[in-house]
Amino acid sequence: MDEASSIGIVLFDGFELLDVFGPVEILGQIRDRFRIDLIGQSAGPVTSAQGPQVLADHAYDDAPACDIVLVPGGIGTRRLVEDEAFLRWLSGWTSGARYVTSVCTGSGLLAAAGLLDGYRATSNKRAFGWASALGHDVEWVPQARWVEDRTRWTSSGVSAGMDMALALVERLCGEETALKAADAVEYDWHRDPSWDPFAAKNGLVLG
Amino acid sequence: MDEASSIGIVLFDGFELLDVFGPVEILGQIRDRFRIDLIGQSAGPVTSAQGPQVLADHAYDDAPACDIVLVPGGIGTRRLVEDEAFLRWLSGWTSGARYVTSVCTGSGLLAAAGLLDGYRATSNKRAFGWASALGHDVEWVPQARWVEDRTRWTSSGVSAGMDMALALVERLCGEETALKAADAVEYDWHRDPSWDPFAAKNGLVLG
Repeated sequence: MDEASSIGIVLFDGFELLDVFGPVEILGQIRDRFRIDLIGQSAGPVTSAQGPQVLADHAYDDAPACDIVLVPGGIGTRRLVEDEAFLRWLSGWTSGARYVTSVCTGSGLLAAAGLLDGYRATSNKRAFGWASALGHDVEWVPQARWVEDRTRWTSSGVSAGMDMALALVERLCGEETALKAADAVEYDWHRDPSWDPFAAKNGLVLG
Repeated sequence: MDEASSIGIVLFDGFELLDVFGPVEILGQIRDRFRIDLIGQSAGPVTSAQGPQVLADHAYDDAPACDIVLVPGGIGTRRLVEDEAFLRWLSGWTSGARYVTSVCTGSGLLAAAGLLDGYRATSNKRAFGWASALGHDVEWVPQARWVEDRTRWTSSGVSAGMDMALALVERLCGEETALKAADAVEYDWHRDPSWDPFAAKNGLVLG
């Protein structure tokens, strides 16, 4: 990758803080390679699941086309999987993206929008039953830190988004850059996408 | 701890996103035990080191007294260690707190405000020389994920704040609650405060 990639992050009321700011922290270590836009229902404050409010840069309707899309999870996803207007927008807006990614229950939103049909994917291990009932012809993988399937990268719960973000940095910018980013934030990067003790802890596989 | 603790988080332009939202994500898993207030120079938008803007709930001058204070790091600390008015406010505001904590170069701010004099402390490993030149009679610990010394808890860089936050949850709410919080966010908690491969990577100790 030679030029800066634009990354669009979808915000909504009840988004999970770390699903967004874990990856943003990682990508923010390589600022000249990534431009980050936060996209909300309207520009301005969006309230996270944990309470703090974050300012969206653009409204859904005015969102710039992005090379990489990231959809977080959080309690707000429960309402949005039934919001046809949102799902239509998400499907349309992401149609030109090189990578469509999610953290945690964000994969439920991708699935509900039809964006995972024919793909392998994973999700949060506590909400796996909920997420994996969505979409058509999605091969849900119960034990995975994250799953890469062509243009769709989906991660497991919350902090797994940082491991996926580092893997994406490695793919786009090389191993050395990814290792530097992990060291800069003193993060113990899990590089093996099959590392997932939380699947067994939640009874999804034998422990 | 039987009643909710109030947690005040100090924001400033150029604060490091994950220093704040890693711990907030952890503490947000136990919402009935913690009330979180974001404190900025004024109430309203504060711009992080990574770009995204977050809304402060209160201005420094109107900040409620808090049981636990958390001071993040980020590039904005470089200016604030020379801001006498800020340091005086920080010293006064934290005087009644049960715990005064920091993530990353936030310990530089605590030290500059005199809040670590006579305490053991650590900081980000890339900025260790900068931080450890601040304060008087501070015993700076080069190899530590975090350091607990009575009322002062200081963590190493960025993601180390999550490990310290979980240790604080363990202290206040018990081991079971802390383990549940780590599992809920699928985080690989480093429970040993002496675990710190980043000290050797940055030449602070022999590798």
